Amino acid sequence: MATAAKPFINPDFLLTTKAARELYHGYAEAMPIIDYHCHLPPKEIAEDKRWDDIADVWLGGDHYKWRQMRTNGFEERLCSGRGEDGSASGWEKFEAFAKTMERLVKNPLFDWSHLELTRYFGVTERLCQESARRIYDKCNKRLKAKWFSARGLMEKSNVAVVCTTDDPADSLEYHLEIAKAPFSARILPAWRSDNASKVENLKTWNAWIDKLGDAAGLAVKTLDDFREAMHKRHDFFAAAGCVVSDYGITEIFAAPYTEAQLRAIFKKARACKAPLSPDEALKFKSAWLYEGLKMDCAADWTTQLHFNCLRNLNSRMFGQMGPDTGYDCIGDWSVAGNLAKLFDRLESEDSLPRCILYSLNPKDNEMLASLIGCFQKAPARGKLQLGAAWWFLDQKDGMRKQIEALSALGSLGTFIGMLTDSRSFLSYTRHEYFRRLLCQKFGEEIEKGELPNDIKWLGGIVADISFNNAKEYFGF
Amino acid sequence: MATAAKPFINPDFLLTTKAARELYHGYAEAMPIIDYHCHLPPKEIAEDKRWDDIADVWLGGDHYKWRQMRTNGFEERLCSGRGEDGSASGWEKFEAFAKTMERLVKNPLFDWSHLELTRYFGVTERLCQESARRIYDKCNKRLKAKWFSARGLMEKSNVAVVCTTDDPADSLEYHLEIAKAPFSARILPAWRSDNASKVENLKTWNAWIDKLGDAAGLAVKTLDDFREAMHKRHDFFAAAGCVVSDYGITEIFAAPYTEAQLRAIFKKARACKAPLSPDEALKFKSAWLYEGLKMDCAADWTTQLHFNCLRNLNSRMFGQMGPDTGYDCIGDWSVAGNLAKLFDRLESEDSLPRCILYSLNPKDNEMLASLIGCFQKAPARGKLQLGAAWWFLDQKDGMRKQIEALSALGSLGTFIGMLTDSRSFLSYTRHEYFRRLLCQKFGEEIEKGELPNDIKWLGGIVADISFNNAKEYFGF
Amino acid sequence: MATAAKPFINPDFLLTTKAARELYHGYAEAMPIIDYHCHLPPKEIAEDKRWDDIADVWLGGDHYKWRQMRTNGFEERLCSGRGEDGSASGWEKFEAFAKTMERLVKNPLFDWSHLELTRYFGVTERLCQESARRIYDKCNKRLKAKWFSARGLMEKSNVAVVCTTDDPADSLEYHLEIAKAPFSARILPAWRSDNASKVENLKTWNAWIDKLGDAAGLAVKTLDDFREAMHKRHDFFAAAGCVVSDYGITEIFAAPYTEAQLRAIFKKARACKAPLSPDEALKFKSAWLYEGLKMDCAADWTTQLHFNCLRNLNSRMFGQMGPDTGYDCIGDWSVAGNLAKLFDRLESEDSLPRCILYSLNPKDNEMLASLIGCFQKAPARGKLQLGAAWWFLDQKDGMRKQIEALSALGSLGTFIGMLTDSRSFLSYTRHEYFRRLLCQKFGEEIEKGELPNDIKWLGGIVADISFNNAKEYFGF
Repeated sequence: MATAAKPFINPDFLLTTKAARELYHGYAEAMPIIDYHCHLPPKEIAEDKRWDDIADVWLGGDHYKWRQMRTNGFEERLCSGRGEDGSASGWEKFEAFAKTMERLVKNPLFDWSHLELTRYFGVTERLCQESARRIYDKCNKRLKAKWFSARGLMEKSNVAVVCTTDDPADSLEYHLEIAKAPFSARILPAWRSDNASKVENLKTWNAWIDKLGDAAGLAVKTLDDFREAMHKRHDFFAAAGCVVSDYGITEIFAAPYTEAQLRAIFKKARACKAPLSPDEALKFKSAWLYEGLKMDCAADWTTQLHFNCLRNLNSRMFGQMGPDTGYDCIGDWSVAGNLAKLFDRLESEDSLPRCILYSLNPKDNEMLASLIGCFQKAPARGKLQLGAAWWFLDQKDGMRKQIEALSALGSLGTFIGMLTDSRSFLSYTRHEYFRRLLCQKFGEEIEKGELPNDIKWLGGIVADISFNNAKEYFGF
Repeated sequence: MATAAKPFINPDFLLTTKAARELYHGYAEAMPIIDYHCHLPPKEIAEDKRWDDIADVWLGGDHYKWRQMRTNGFEERLCSGRGEDGSASGWEKFEAFAKTMERLVKNPLFDWSHLELTRYFGVTERLCQESARRIYDKCNKRLKAKWFSARGLMEKSNVAVVCTTDDPADSLEYHLEIAKAPFSARILPAWRSDNASKVENLKTWNAWIDKLGDAAGLAVKTLDDFREAMHKRHDFFAAAGCVVSDYGITEIFAAPYTEAQLRAIFKKARACKAPLSPDEALKFKSAWLYEGLKMDCAADWTTQLHFNCLRNLNSRMFGQMGPDTGYDCIGDWSVAGNLAKLFDRLESEDSLPRCILYSLNPKDNEMLASLIGCFQKAPARGKLQLGAAWWFLDQKDGMRKQIEALSALGSLGTFIGMLTDSRSFLSYTRHEYFRRLLCQKFGEEIEKGELPNDIKWLGGIVADISFNNAKEYFGF
Repeated sequence: MATAAKPFINPDFLLTTKAARELYHGYAEAMPIIDYHCHLPPKEIAEDKRWDDIADVWLGGDHYKWRQMRTNGFEERLCSGRGEDGSASGWEKFEAFAKTMERLVKNPLFDWSHLELTRYFGVTERLCQESARRIYDKCNKRLKAKWFSARGLMEKSNVAVVCTTDDPADSLEYHLEIAKAPFSARILPAWRSDNASKVENLKTWNAWIDKLGDAAGLAVKTLDDFREAMHKRHDFFAAAGCVVSDYGITEIFAAPYTEAQLRAIFKKARACKAPLSPDEALKFKSAWLYEGLKMDCAADWTTQLHFNCLRNLNSRMFGQMGPDTGYDCIGDWSVAGNLAKLFDRLESEDSLPRCILYSLNPKDNEMLASLIGCFQKAPARGKLQLGAAWWFLDQKDGMRKQIEALSALGSLGTFIGMLTDSRSFLSYTRHEYFRRLLCQKFGEEIEKGELPNDIKWLGGIVADISFNNAKEYFGF
């Protein structure tokens, strides 16, 4: 009685109406994947990486899982294995995660993990303490399959395009290597210049500026040098196929400043003798953001803005483990005023690029869905986009809220859809997850008479959101 | 299979339970409409305006539709026809909107448009590219019907009262004309004095102050003159039947100031030689808002406050098209502290009028529903109201959230219900839409056992929210 | 037809699926109650208080009801009976509340009242104008039952532990008295030192400091004396069984300050000649909060933080009636940055206690659920908690949002569950209400295939959230 007759992940997972099933199986399931923003390491694609232990795959770099394991009382050695207490074995970690799963009712990790187990490992039972060893062994055996490699997973997942996340100072060597011997998925770099804005720590900032100068082949002494170096690298990225940039920020930076102030701030920062004042730092960041978007527009790229995010809250753990280890959270700033200022300035100069806005705070959904409507411009379709639910919001409730806000205040039919934002080659199931939710949403509304029962029309929209819109938007 | 057996808009549209149908058809449907806030031009009512082309009716002034058409890549000539690129023909615009409708899945325009097509034009098929010409011709033919006029539409829609939106300097000539030859709907003016607060542009502000003086029959030189002029016009509006005012603001203005400061600021503004400082402007706006509410209370009017709204974000388009053309968005300020200050100041002086609070940001729903509870006062029932979901929120999700917050934190049973806030004579279907959603909400909860299955009791509440509460509240 | 065949409150109230019923009746219903935060007066427990009139029980101190009655137009004499207009009789008040109930569709008071009528008074019909007298008489008769006393109600409600809310200057005499003759429920004090922070009114603050000094047996002249007195009382509370503290704040106080500044501020405050500047007050509050949490950590207590709350908005009524009379509302500050600062400071010093975070604004749910993940620490399970929906949010929609945010961004399985936060001995039905909602949520998701149909596993989680987790967390 307590056991489901059919597995949790079954062909009709999340699809409770006939219409939802028709939409998913008829229009969504077969569409290829355009993963226009992720954090996969190009090196691992170039080398077609393989794994020996599912604990490496699942727990080697996944701060979502680490956070949950910490919450459930496990020491760092069982989570990341990067803390002061060293690292446990793969099995110990996997078992600790299996125990954690017992508590993750209604958490996206519960669904994601079971989707990955089913799709890539052929495991259909629930991962829990009792099943842990059985599943661990089965997964590790499966890892030996010929196709179980970085590229094999992409092929199996029907991935058409992947955009990674790359630093302007990066040589893009692995991207160039991949391009020389292409495979089924196009792998493209994406411009992430956040390091240029991290003037809080002038020592690391200056080191990065030097690196940037080296990459650009010039000595960066003045603000003009900096701009020239950034433009050179921007051109270099474009030549390597880059068509998308990404800015990871806290609040939106839109403080007023003059060119003279900017020159003085850059000079001071480069001198590296005294820290910038908060006002100077804000002016510099504001200029960096504005000039970045202007550069993107000139290159006909798409800009992604990720914001309302607080990073590295826990100094103690940051000291031990560094960034991206699970110590970030949602911010709650007011951002509408500054976003409007930044966009209006760019639009007045005919320099506003196609933009995708992602806030980490769901309170911003409606505001953003209404703000983008003020800067749409023909002939683009959906020039400004409310991005898919991101990071902590990349779960059922977050996705539903994004779909609800976008459809009610913007145009869902022009939405470019899902991305993984992931560091793992197993995350393509998140596209499946999103598509199922979208079809279920339409199916439920058809059943309630809130949408016309016109499967062909709605199926077309589902196919567009799953693939066609992104393809047209980015020009892939 | 892909086509619904019954039309999308059918007698039981949005009503999926027996209880919902009983509530709607038994208690809501037949109630007259009190539209206590809208933007209909009194001139068009006085003249009993008629139309030749549904493109004029639908696309002549509807910035909701323009935004969606821009989002879907149509040039301004096909949207408003007011941009730099001139105007397309009626048919071209209608066709562009029909194409846009293909993408508007789950958007209120999709539902509103089909409701209007069904109720006023007898069209029941889905508006899309394929049906566009057929529907365009049918609608234009229907526009020739004798009853298809401003007043005819009001009568057909069972409208009892309409409050328009009028400037204090307005002569109310059309209102006076209508009053001389009344028809089935009472048409009343409403006080919207926002122009008095627009001190950012002192040139237009001074021109407006002059106009106000002319209307009041006095020369406005000092702050006292200004106050006298405002009071005279307030009295004039009252004599013309006005019982409701409206303030459209961004944040809530509640800065401290002294009478001496205010006099100096008014003098400086009137001199029009130097712009007011942000602090001076804020002090003036704070006084304007406070004195406005005080005046409303003295006259036993109801005050409406519309806030958390950012206007005219896009300078380029504002330069081309002016205000109210689709370039506004939701604001995200913190407003609780200032609202509390303003209301406490007025309440301490026994000068707080009946108020309806509308925030454009749904994040404010719960806060507002709790705040009004602090200033309720016998013998009024629901003296302070959380207004119906407004503008961008005037859609299913927005309405549901408003109903949820109001019922859980305030008193849904005393709610004065829906208004159109519209510029179109076809928008009365939004009252129908709201009533259906309300009945559906009750019906669903009855079915789940969350509400007692007492149709008579709940039907009474439905009838009250649809009509009786507003009638009692405004004294119509 | 209009009357339900079964009563509104029936054994399967809010449970519409088989799974929900199995979960509730099989795993939740029988669990004892740990009410780790409430406002019950220890005196009334010590004296085993009894009542003569349900109007006293229901309307003697319940500001939820007073607010609703005021909203529905009733004079203060019929609500609190504490206003300028004196007090009405018990029956008059009860009748006014019954009339108010007619309007409270979908309000938690509607559900709570009927739950209390059913569980404690055996009344199953709807409370309305028509039934008011009948129910009033029946309730007053029932109040004469032997078991109908403070302790009797706790026993009947299967209460295992209750933590009250006590001032550091309190003698805890009633707690000590109860401890001498224990009964089925353990009654423990909780530390609420808010009075120490109320430096806006230095006169009352100084009087309180004197009282604190008396209780601690020392004269409080300097900051060091103050700290010593606080520590002494903290120890005294610990000896009386206290393991939990509570801070009721507006925004989160985390301003920077130096020890020298703090000493000067304390001296100035104690001198009571000039008011503290806003900056001084903020510094003092920041220190008070930081030192309080540090003290809690050292004592291995759990800290509760209640914030984003605006208190005593209505000066006129505050003058008449004082605090806690229904004139508070939800605040809408940004709090993430300061919370992060405060917690990081404490964590860096290894002094962050177990914490439960309660915001009064539902916009904070997701932010908080993500923030706590940055400070979790083994070996505790769920060291930091997102508290149950609080006060105005203690209703279906508020609870659902809390459960949704916690499960999606945190770990629902480690949640310590519900509390009443109540001033009434009848409020234990809120635990029942919460448990039903939780089971219903799981049941619905099982039915949709969003959760595995594994009743035993989910039942264990339900039992944990209902009781086991809190027991382990607090060490009861």
